[in-house]
Amino acid sequence: MPFSYERTIRLSDTDAAGIVFFANYLALCHEAYEAALDDAGLPLHEFFADGDVIVPIARSTADYLRPLRCGDRIKIALKPEALSDNSFALNYEILRMTAPVKVAARVRTEHVSTSRSKKERVALPPKLATWVSAG
Amino acid sequence: MPFSYERTIRLSDTDAAGIVFFANYLALCHEAYEAALDDAGLPLHEFFADGDVIVPIARSTADYLRPLRCGDRIKIALKPEALSDNSFALNYEILRMTAPVKVAARVRTEHVSTSRSKKERVALPPKLATWVSAG
Amino acid sequence: MPFSYERTIRLSDTDAAGIVFFANYLALCHEAYEAALDDAGLPLHEFFADGDVIVPIARSTADYLRPLRCGDRIKIALKPEALSDNSFALNYEILRMTAPVKVAARVRTEHVSTSRSKKERVALPPKLATWVSAG
Amino acid sequence: MPFSYERTIRLSDTDAAGIVFFANYLALCHEAYEAALDDAGLPLHEFFADGDVIVPIARSTADYLRPLRCGDRIKIALKPEALSDNSFALNYEILRMTAPVKVAARVRTEHVSTSRSKKERVALPPKLATWVSAG
Repeated sequence: MPFSYERTIRLSDTDAAGIVFFANYLALCHEAYEAALDDAGLPLHEFFADGDVIVPIARSTADYLRPLRCGDRIKIALKPEALSDNSFALNYEILRMTAPVKVAARVRTEHVSTSRSKKERVALPPKLATWVSAG
Repeated sequence: MPFSYERTIRLSDTDAAGIVFFANYLALCHEAYEAALDDAGLPLHEFFADGDVIVPIARSTADYLRPLRCGDRIKIALKPEALSDNSFALNYEILRMTAPVKVAARVRTEHVSTSRSKKERVALPPKLATWVSAG
Repeated sequence: MPFSYERTIRLSDTDAAGIVFFANYLALCHEAYEAALDDAGLPLHEFFADGDVIVPIARSTADYLRPLRCGDRIKIALKPEALSDNSFALNYEILRMTAPVKVAARVRTEHVSTSRSKKERVALPPKLATWVSAG
Repeated sequence: MPFSYERTIRLSDTDAAGIVFFANYLALCHEAYEAALDDAGLPLHEFFADGDVIVPIARSTADYLRPLRCGDRIKIALKPEALSDNSFALNYEILRMTAPVKVAARVRTEHVSTSRSKKERVALPPKLATWVSAG
């Protein structure tokens, strides 16, 4: 079962076209990622607070299939995918839960484990690697 | 009992100073307001979608008492206060729930019921007036 | 010569990792698109204010090559590319202008001309088609 | 002469009510503050990057007088005001430059110089104090 995250679209997510601004679909997905990491006991903020290894996003793709409006209830399903010993992808599906349920977007982000001091790719932190492979 | 709204601070709420950007405290409070209206069966988006009467914010004040960080759990308590037949205030308290619980901010917004066609103040919509006076 | 747009990275663009939040790279590119349309006498807000035809983003891809920090000066070059009579792409390059100049990201968005009333693809508005083909 | 900062309202500043989201007026003012500090050779990011003294916002007030829409050209005038040896205020006026020019909002922020290590108020950094008193 992929991890899933629910919330309601709020006014600050939208723009004057009356719908969620396209860049905010990616921010919504990142919320789901942070919630998934919290759920796994791996809070994101510990990565950039504590240590030398960070896991920035190197690439994103998004297919915007349907508009989302203020008040819409959404569910985001999130599935990690191992790419190499130093990188992984997250595949997101944003569902608009107002009946009939429809896919509003598909988003993918690719993350690369990087040493700040060495400025080069390094193996994923072990707990994160475990979470990805369990995905 | 005032309405309360909980959520977790996410990376997109914060800035490079490592804490929630001051303007985002107001956005967090507006989320709580929208959740309170949903809870009362008065979803905000129906105001600006449907009719002539809108209830924009005319004034805000905020006292920022403590920083909020990525991963912090917050609870926002919200209490409406009638000001006149065409205006009301919302008094918010943002609590940081990480023990020991502390007040992170106090925010107040003032809202004025306005007719788009007449460009003047008009009485609050009856359901909203009821919600305010029940506050 | 592609259109170019310059500005400085501000605190609200960044997150607690100390750099521009990945979704905000897309928002920065959209600013450049709006500036390019203004420059061509085709302000974006006229599309969603006035008529039946809107041109939403159907797909985005972004390669994040280098971090951007508060205070960094950036230049975004933007080049339209015709895809069909009802769609076009925008190819963006975000340059970090602090010496030595480096490419910070490459972003691409795909836009589809859509009739709100018919809920189907329609030919691009003539002025927009001209702007794309001149790109 | 107060410092002034101009820019155009972009889609991402607005919400589904068709106007700039109230919290974003504060973000716009903070952009003007950062531009003023850049102009004075005191870039903001040096405060939170380098040293022990930070100058967070302790209080904000905003009067929202007129809506701002996508495409509106705005000018923000900014005037510092000394409050004590460890605090100052910034008084902002946001003008909507589309003729006839009108004041869209008045915003005030209060800033307190704080030592991160001592967790108490300390005197403003000398260069910042000079900038405030020249205001």
